Amino acid sequence: MTIEPRVLKGFTDHLPDKMLVRREMLSSLEQTFLLHGFVPIDTPALEYSEILLGKGSQETDKQLYRFEDNGGRDIALRFDLTVPFARFAAQHLHEIGTPFRRYHIAPVWRAEKPQRGRYREFIQCDFDIIGTTSKLADAEIIGMINASLSKLGVSHQIRINNRKLLAGVLDSLGISDRSQAVLRTVDKLEKLGQEIVIKELTTEVGLNSRNVDSLLRFIGLSNGQESVGAVISAIEDFGLNNEILAQGISELREVISYLDALGLVTQNGGPTPFCIDLGIARGLDYYTSTVFETTLTDLPEIGSICSGGRYDNLAEIYTKQALPGVGASIGIDRILGAFDVLGKIPPKQTSARALVVSSPIERRAQCIRAASILRSAGISTELSTQDTRLKQELKYANRKSIPFIIFPSEEEGLFNIKSMIDGTQKDNVRMENLAQELG
Amino acid sequence: MTIEPRVLKGFTDHLPDKMLVRREMLSSLEQTFLLHGFVPIDTPALEYSEILLGKGSQETDKQLYRFEDNGGRDIALRFDLTVPFARFAAQHLHEIGTPFRRYHIAPVWRAEKPQRGRYREFIQCDFDIIGTTSKLADAEIIGMINASLSKLGVSHQIRINNRKLLAGVLDSLGISDRSQAVLRTVDKLEKLGQEIVIKELTTEVGLNSRNVDSLLRFIGLSNGQESVGAVISAIEDFGLNNEILAQGISELREVISYLDALGLVTQNGGPTPFCIDLGIARGLDYYTSTVFETTLTDLPEIGSICSGGRYDNLAEIYTKQALPGVGASIGIDRILGAFDVLGKIPPKQTSARALVVSSPIERRAQCIRAASILRSAGISTELSTQDTRLKQELKYANRKSIPFIIFPSEEEGLFNIKSMIDGTQKDNVRMENLAQELG
Repeated sequence: MTIEPRVLKGFTDHLPDKMLVRREMLSSLEQTFLLHGFVPIDTPALEYSEILLGKGSQETDKQLYRFEDNGGRDIALRFDLTVPFARFAAQHLHEIGTPFRRYHIAPVWRAEKPQRGRYREFIQCDFDIIGTTSKLADAEIIGMINASLSKLGVSHQIRINNRKLLAGVLDSLGISDRSQAVLRTVDKLEKLGQEIVIKELTTEVGLNSRNVDSLLRFIGLSNGQESVGAVISAIEDFGLNNEILAQGISELREVISYLDALGLVTQNGGPTPFCIDLGIARGLDYYTSTVFETTLTDLPEIGSICSGGRYDNLAEIYTKQALPGVGASIGIDRILGAFDVLGKIPPKQTSARALVVSSPIERRAQCIRAASILRSAGISTELSTQDTRLKQELKYANRKSIPFIIFPSEEEGLFNIKSMIDGTQKDNVRMENLAQELG
Repeated sequence: MTIEPRVLKGFTDHLPDKMLVRREMLSSLEQTFLLHGFVPIDTPALEYSEILLGKGSQETDKQLYRFEDNGGRDIALRFDLTVPFARFAAQHLHEIGTPFRRYHIAPVWRAEKPQRGRYREFIQCDFDIIGTTSKLADAEIIGMINASLSKLGVSHQIRINNRKLLAGVLDSLGISDRSQAVLRTVDKLEKLGQEIVIKELTTEVGLNSRNVDSLLRFIGLSNGQESVGAVISAIEDFGLNNEILAQGISELREVISYLDALGLVTQNGGPTPFCIDLGIARGLDYYTSTVFETTLTDLPEIGSICSGGRYDNLAEIYTKQALPGVGASIGIDRILGAFDVLGKIPPKQTSARALVVSSPIERRAQCIRAASILRSAGISTELSTQDTRLKQELKYANRKSIPFIIFPSEEEGLFNIKSMIDGTQKDNVRMENLAQELG
């Protein structure tokens, strides 16, 4: 009797082809984070439900993997990295000090209805600077997003807004009491299109058509402008005036001046790395100032691959100390999906550049030494453990897309190198020269 | 009302100082694994309890974080990486092919009584070659352990045995019916000492004193020998003869000949990287041939930091296809603990080599540019987002052990570099030369 090997619905195994790509991507991101002086932290996957739920919604509650442990504690698996970070910051404030810049790459779990390409377990990648109200921190985060994505080689544009602009407009129009509903609806502009959003703003949110028109005309100011300066002039010329709006303009201007000083550039002559997009609202109430989303130039339809913004207080549920900050989250799975579509970093079955066969048996010790020498030279090498025919080994190398296969030549002590890419073969290479031949 | 920020009993947060060391260690290990042609996989943290328990013991059951999900499924968090790998191998055999060499670095959860330095959530790091009975695979695994630990810079010795040797001896003595109990007791030799083990073998396992004596004399054959060859001669001269013992000797000899060909060396003139230790039994019934443990030369008392062995069948619960293989597990937490004790890779608060201040405000754009230039040169740099006095910044750099602080000099456009290590200062450095000055 055997048990049928299977995974839970909504979960998936990660095979080497995908894992090698994911690993390379995460390692590249980490290098960029460290280069910017961000440090890693980790928190437990399991926490008290009370901690994770905080003032959470019923929606969050339903998504929790929540249960009682053997000690009768009400516990759950984390569903994001923001709540644990808030708890962490409150708990360790004295040890970590502020300002504090951290990143956290870890799995989270959500008992959602599984959808195409979305799993109940997935990796999140968050980074924040907390303990500062300085707008230079906003620019640091945006600059790091640009550096991270540039290093990954994806052409992108970071679309920046400031929540105070929309708040100011709503205030001027006398509809700030409905700002939450308005922002959530505006946030869907790109996804649903102008027509549907106008309908929702009118029927569901209950704005009159003059206000809807003003709002959408304001948002439209950032369309087709030549420069961020031109957008800001357009906002100033729009004719609405109030303190919140003015503050929003001033903050946006400051962030952009820092971004200019950072000298953001894109790879491969892509578009300017950042722009102002007055339609960026972000669904969460949490953000209070700068907000941003990031679009892949070659695949804008997959939506934002990195979003975030500035908040006034990270951890108010856990501590009385105000912790203002700014942060972002990179959508690892979306970028991996995009890599797939765009053919970047094609999946591979192995890291090995060379397969060294280990037969015939009487030449085995030499083969083992050859593999050792290649590895010492930093060349990823698989040493075959089998005593099989060369034909079998070629099949294996081919299947795993290992670019070179090395086997003893007829001359004692020498080796042949066959390229699995173009089929060419170099005969009678001395052991010491193998690494050099593989370049 | 705030919620008290706290973690569950037996769990811990990982602060940047420890995380930076752990990250470096795992990254070093992964590089070695990839160099040897091993590939990463990942499996879900949650699985059907039925899958995880398999033919598991009651002990395992008690340690499981097990619960019912919203769909009424009986699920649990994985407690090791071996069971999920067996399930994975059975499920994906056709896609992965054999021989298959994988590594898996991931957290596991055990609802054990928390002990000093042991947590209910910890990282495991496993690697295996499956689908081959070749003893060259055993040597590949042992060779990779040596390469991994050498790259980490820890002096170590891998102690190798073959289960068939002890099995042969027990057979010759006519006590192979009690082999499980004997092996488990012998496994405790190093921990409890000879005297207690003799007592246990006599009273609990029920061996007569002549057999206990023969057994311990046999195990003692590997003590104080000059070479592995001398140990093998001593075994052959011991006077016991049977087929299992002979097979054990032949297998051990073969593995060692491959290790010789691999040319294992230690760093810093440590002891020979491997030896035969006839006392290595390993508690698990699972192993059938080669077994090994690894001791830190400078800290043997913490026990084995990397153990494993050869098994006949990995996944018999999930598939009828026999999957022989050989694997090992590196004790990440033990090595990190040893690093702490031995003062290797001292913990640090940040990855940053330089802190660039961003005040006075009128020089801020220059400071930002300077940070950008340093990062482009690959120097990990924290750009202060604060507008504070230099004294405050020095305090911050000191607290975080950032080695250099860079601030605008009195000369427009130039910078001063202060070393936080020796207090020296270099004045009036041009922006373009900052990276070079930091070396």
